[in-house]
Amino acid sequence: CLRFAVGLAAAVVVYSPAVAQPPDVPASDTQPTRIEADLYSQLARMQQQIDELKNVSAAPAPIYDFAPMPHCEPKPEKPKFPTVRLTGFFQADAVYFDQDATNIAAVGDAQDGADFRRARLAAVGQAWDNVSYQLEMDFAFPGRPNFMDVWLDVDDVIGSNNLRIGQFRQPFGMDGLTSVKEMTFLERGLPFAFLPFRQIGAALYGNHKDELATWAISAFRYPTDVYGGNVGDNGGYGMATRLTGLMINNDDGNGLVHVGGGFSFIDPANDKFQFRNQPEVFVGEDGGGVLAGTNPKLAPFADTGEIDARNASLFSAELAGSCGSFYAQSEAIYAQVDQLAGPMLSFSGAYAYCGYFLTGEKRPYNGKAGVFGTVTPTKSVGKEGGIGAWEVATRYSHVDLSDKNINGGRLNNITAGLNWYLNPHTKFQFNYIYSMLNAQAGAGPVPVSAAGVGDSEAGIYAMRAQVDF
Amino acid sequence: CLRFAVGLAAAVVVYSPAVAQPPDVPASDTQPTRIEADLYSQLARMQQQIDELKNVSAAPAPIYDFAPMPHCEPKPEKPKFPTVRLTGFFQADAVYFDQDATNIAAVGDAQDGADFRRARLAAVGQAWDNVSYQLEMDFAFPGRPNFMDVWLDVDDVIGSNNLRIGQFRQPFGMDGLTSVKEMTFLERGLPFAFLPFRQIGAALYGNHKDELATWAISAFRYPTDVYGGNVGDNGGYGMATRLTGLMINNDDGNGLVHVGGGFSFIDPANDKFQFRNQPEVFVGEDGGGVLAGTNPKLAPFADTGEIDARNASLFSAELAGSCGSFYAQSEAIYAQVDQLAGPMLSFSGAYAYCGYFLTGEKRPYNGKAGVFGTVTPTKSVGKEGGIGAWEVATRYSHVDLSDKNINGGRLNNITAGLNWYLNPHTKFQFNYIYSMLNAQAGAGPVPVSAAGVGDSEAGIYAMRAQVDF
Amino acid sequence: CLRFAVGLAAAVVVYSPAVAQPPDVPASDTQPTRIEADLYSQLARMQQQIDELKNVSAAPAPIYDFAPMPHCEPKPEKPKFPTVRLTGFFQADAVYFDQDATNIAAVGDAQDGADFRRARLAAVGQAWDNVSYQLEMDFAFPGRPNFMDVWLDVDDVIGSNNLRIGQFRQPFGMDGLTSVKEMTFLERGLPFAFLPFRQIGAALYGNHKDELATWAISAFRYPTDVYGGNVGDNGGYGMATRLTGLMINNDDGNGLVHVGGGFSFIDPANDKFQFRNQPEVFVGEDGGGVLAGTNPKLAPFADTGEIDARNASLFSAELAGSCGSFYAQSEAIYAQVDQLAGPMLSFSGAYAYCGYFLTGEKRPYNGKAGVFGTVTPTKSVGKEGGIGAWEVATRYSHVDLSDKNINGGRLNNITAGLNWYLNPHTKFQFNYIYSMLNAQAGAGPVPVSAAGVGDSEAGIYAMRAQVDF
Repeated sequence: CLRFAVGLAAAVVVYSPAVAQPPDVPASDTQPTRIEADLYSQLARMQQQIDELKNVSAAPAPIYDFAPMPHCEPKPEKPKFPTVRLTGFFQADAVYFDQDATNIAAVGDAQDGADFRRARLAAVGQAWDNVSYQLEMDFAFPGRPNFMDVWLDVDDVIGSNNLRIGQFRQPFGMDGLTSVKEMTFLERGLPFAFLPFRQIGAALYGNHKDELATWAISAFRYPTDVYGGNVGDNGGYGMATRLTGLMINNDDGNGLVHVGGGFSFIDPANDKFQFRNQPEVFVGEDGGGVLAGTNPKLAPFADTGEIDARNASLFSAELAGSCGSFYAQSEAIYAQVDQLAGPMLSFSGAYAYCGYFLTGEKRPYNGKAGVFGTVTPTKSVGKEGGIGAWEVATRYSHVDLSDKNINGGRLNNITAGLNWYLNPHTKFQFNYIYSMLNAQAGAGPVPVSAAGVGDSEAGIYAMRAQVDF
Repeated sequence: CLRFAVGLAAAVVVYSPAVAQPPDVPASDTQPTRIEADLYSQLARMQQQIDELKNVSAAPAPIYDFAPMPHCEPKPEKPKFPTVRLTGFFQADAVYFDQDATNIAAVGDAQDGADFRRARLAAVGQAWDNVSYQLEMDFAFPGRPNFMDVWLDVDDVIGSNNLRIGQFRQPFGMDGLTSVKEMTFLERGLPFAFLPFRQIGAALYGNHKDELATWAISAFRYPTDVYGGNVGDNGGYGMATRLTGLMINNDDGNGLVHVGGGFSFIDPANDKFQFRNQPEVFVGEDGGGVLAGTNPKLAPFADTGEIDARNASLFSAELAGSCGSFYAQSEAIYAQVDQLAGPMLSFSGAYAYCGYFLTGEKRPYNGKAGVFGTVTPTKSVGKEGGIGAWEVATRYSHVDLSDKNINGGRLNNITAGLNWYLNPHTKFQFNYIYSMLNAQAGAGPVPVSAAGVGDSEAGIYAMRAQVDF
Repeated sequence: CLRFAVGLAAAVVVYSPAVAQPPDVPASDTQPTRIEADLYSQLARMQQQIDELKNVSAAPAPIYDFAPMPHCEPKPEKPKFPTVRLTGFFQADAVYFDQDATNIAAVGDAQDGADFRRARLAAVGQAWDNVSYQLEMDFAFPGRPNFMDVWLDVDDVIGSNNLRIGQFRQPFGMDGLTSVKEMTFLERGLPFAFLPFRQIGAALYGNHKDELATWAISAFRYPTDVYGGNVGDNGGYGMATRLTGLMINNDDGNGLVHVGGGFSFIDPANDKFQFRNQPEVFVGEDGGGVLAGTNPKLAPFADTGEIDARNASLFSAELAGSCGSFYAQSEAIYAQVDQLAGPMLSFSGAYAYCGYFLTGEKRPYNGKAGVFGTVTPTKSVGKEGGIGAWEVATRYSHVDLSDKNINGGRLNNITAGLNWYLNPHTKFQFNYIYSMLNAQAGAGPVPVSAAGVGDSEAGIYAMRAQVDF
């Protein structure tokens, strides 16, 4: 409103119209007739009106004494903070298993099913100009509702770095730090088994001003339960750090190479570790309201069981890149576990995958976090009249949880994926996972029966509907 | 702001004012005097000012370079989607039981108590112009928090029909599809025992363009647990369909007759069914923080226990109508269960109820869903100075869960209800339920002791406070 | 927008410009020349334009037919109610214990740890002009999520008093009614053990029009579980009342003296009571996802165990005051328990504490609730360039849970606190608690082993990060 008034005033002032008055000639030279004098008088009155218009326009404040402004939302007078926004998402999965007999003997008869893999609500916002927060709960994972990202951030604590306090994903691993809403496949790769992931603690993190590099270091209690707590006098501490950089960073996403590395040292409460993972898919049924009869949850295909150990050191290396509609990401993780009453253990895992958008989109890079970001279809399904974004992708991943006295098994997965992004907030995903397990005889959780020792295979068909807001 | 400017421009343009200039006569005919020429010059300058006003009005864009617009909220530039709204409601109940001795022997000593029957929070919104979603959790029902409506809808998938994916109330039964916020009595009628209700799956649904009919068909996993999951290789699938129409539909709610029917076929996971129901009221205490001593939950009055069965077919018929402040609704449901090692079973249930608004309101009909809708008091309590809406209602309902080798009991309820709607979002409800149970001797959960065999009665006084937002 | 238009019209009208016309002289006296007549004609046309400007300004409604108003948010036309706002907060704690040997024998080896003490989300708003509500859940406390404040309020039910229905903190005790977000120390004082606190029921409450006094009376079911329910035919009812007043109330917070008292009578369901408390700190780990090995929760230091009793009467007295940056609060609670098969029991507790703001802030008094309110730093950390508010505080508190046949223990705590309020919504708290336990030999939960009988000490270091929104 004011904008128009001010603009009006400015435009009028620019032209500096003269005030109506008799021409600048000697009064004795020409005498206006009575009619002409009256005309001058009227002109002066009209000029006065225009001047009033100008005054009204140039001094908007008094205007607001005249009347309320019912058709404009008034500028909020109340304090700007705290701000809060409700966000969330859910993933509804359907999964079908095709196991060979050895695989069934090794991990049990995996049941077909449908389930919500994740369903989250979060409050996010600013508590103050330099303090942001998130309070996120997951309602789908056993332990419901689980603490997810529950933290407060104070900006610019040391230089332009931020301090984060609460529960959050510890800075270790590119896959682990990629948002679960933005994953190319249904689940993270098999080496996810090693990650400290969400723990309660504090971190300092920042990035290069041109977003060419990121760094982070954290200290935390370990292992944090699903409600964000950990106790234990005998250890229970860990630290993690991650550094990433862009080696090549051509504009427009045409040519980008990311490298990164991480390290984590963990002294667990109660001197116990356990590493395990499902075959990059999960489906389960839990809680009351249904009649039992089958194993309600998919068992881990590889599982070390409890290991009595003083501490563990984790190392990770990342290499990723994109060029046009093609992108690729890979990571290797190595874990060294110092057993209490046994030899030093070495476990490892790695994955590599690539994706290509058939419809021409690019996978953007999130330079603040050092991970790939959200895909936005060029033309969404709906009023835009598009077909959304279509992506094909494939992944190889591997984890070896067997070493010396621990027989957790070796698991290799090959996955083919097809993703259909209807719009930036809705997608359907289809994965075919060919999972190859090598189980060793031993005291560990896998295999569940002796007939499962050796190589076995499972084919897994899975699909997902996801919406976020 | 622009509106004013554009309007101004339009108004001025309509009048096409002439530019100030000498009259259109031959120059030789009359020569203006020097004074008169000066007047023309001044008129021209004034006209120039007015023209500038017009230009300013007609070309608003450059205006915004001059100044910010602090008193108008700028039009949001960011994407319109996703949208999100936080909604929810809760129901606080107090219940008193008056059982005869046989009834206590049959179902246990039902304890008086107070409880939150339902307490829900939901995020609802649009993920895109053609994709809507809901993520709703209930915090009051055992299993807390439970998945309620958690789905995404894609509009106009086949013709003008919508596709729904996730967990939702399956299209079967008018009572079951009526919102729990809008029920005439505290609970749905006894035949609710048979409904598949909320399951994880997909549905296609739509309605006649004038909302004279609705249709829906769905496929789902069965039985879905309280967290939206189901697994099982041996079955675990179901389908449901419902069709409704208006036979009479006079405007203004004066004369409406609804008919409908539904069918559902279910092949349950693990070949197990169980049908049961409380006496149209529920109160309980659960979880920690209190000292035990009494049975903390109201037992079902009728309960088949687990039935080993291949599948079940469900049939429903609906008849409802309204005229002025009076309305009535009835439904019959028939279930045929194919036992694994026993004869075919037949169970059935029915209810009929009517309501009347003493304060003159009408019960609106929701033509998109084929159910009755929300009551809005003519004059709410508060600033409107009204007494809200007052409604009396009565219901008879029946369920027979005994057949052949299954002794689930026969239950008949008569209910008198009084509802006080303070405003469209707050109501108090009072129910007196006279519950008549006929329990047969058998291996089922009811009766809990032999002394409970035969006819027994319970009088139940219940009240509820409800608020929704 | 309209504001400008109306303002323009008003300004123009004030000056009542004359319409352009020949001077008011007899027509026969002076005849305008043809040129002059034309000038009048032009003036008239220009005046007509200005009049049009006026008309456009004075009659804004038709303007909106010309064009949409894309730069102003239109005034919302939809109903004003219900309103809803998402609020919440969380507290992340880290705690370290330093127990002597007797204390470890008395209460177990308390484990160091980190945990979310509270994490809450709430929907609050108005369902109608005279009906407000809250639906709050806590996700951190065992039993998650727990019902917190879940109620509806109807305004002006008897005079200007409000009626509250649902679960809420019963009106008894100043400490108990102070918001957990605004506590000076990490936890409420030891006498909190006796409070009915949150129960399901109804209350009538109000305050003096100048906020010089508050009153409240309530009836409720007892004990209400973590989900807001209670059942039981044998009792299960309670009532509470509280009255507070300001003896001295100088403006500007310079000199305020608060006195108050409360009474509660409780006939518990199942004739059972239990009083207990942790040493004003709590840390725990619970639920799955972690490997066990230590006692996951801090045990109560004083605990009566279950007492079979008919009823209990509770009495409280409050005295508090503030002067400038200094404030103090104290409370004494006396409980009399009528045992079923034993003598009448008397338990008691008291606390007193004071706080002082080093940075000059005052602790405001909430005259509507009769408790101290929220601290707002004079200059917050961030763009305001301040250091926030810094507060030092100390508390002594005591509870005696041993009487006659009940050996719950006597606990005395001395606490030193330092609070740093970064801004009105973010704070860090540091507490050192010196806890002195006197445990008697007996059948109660404390001590857990005979070596714990007698006096023992524990030093507790605790810190908290809190953000609210």
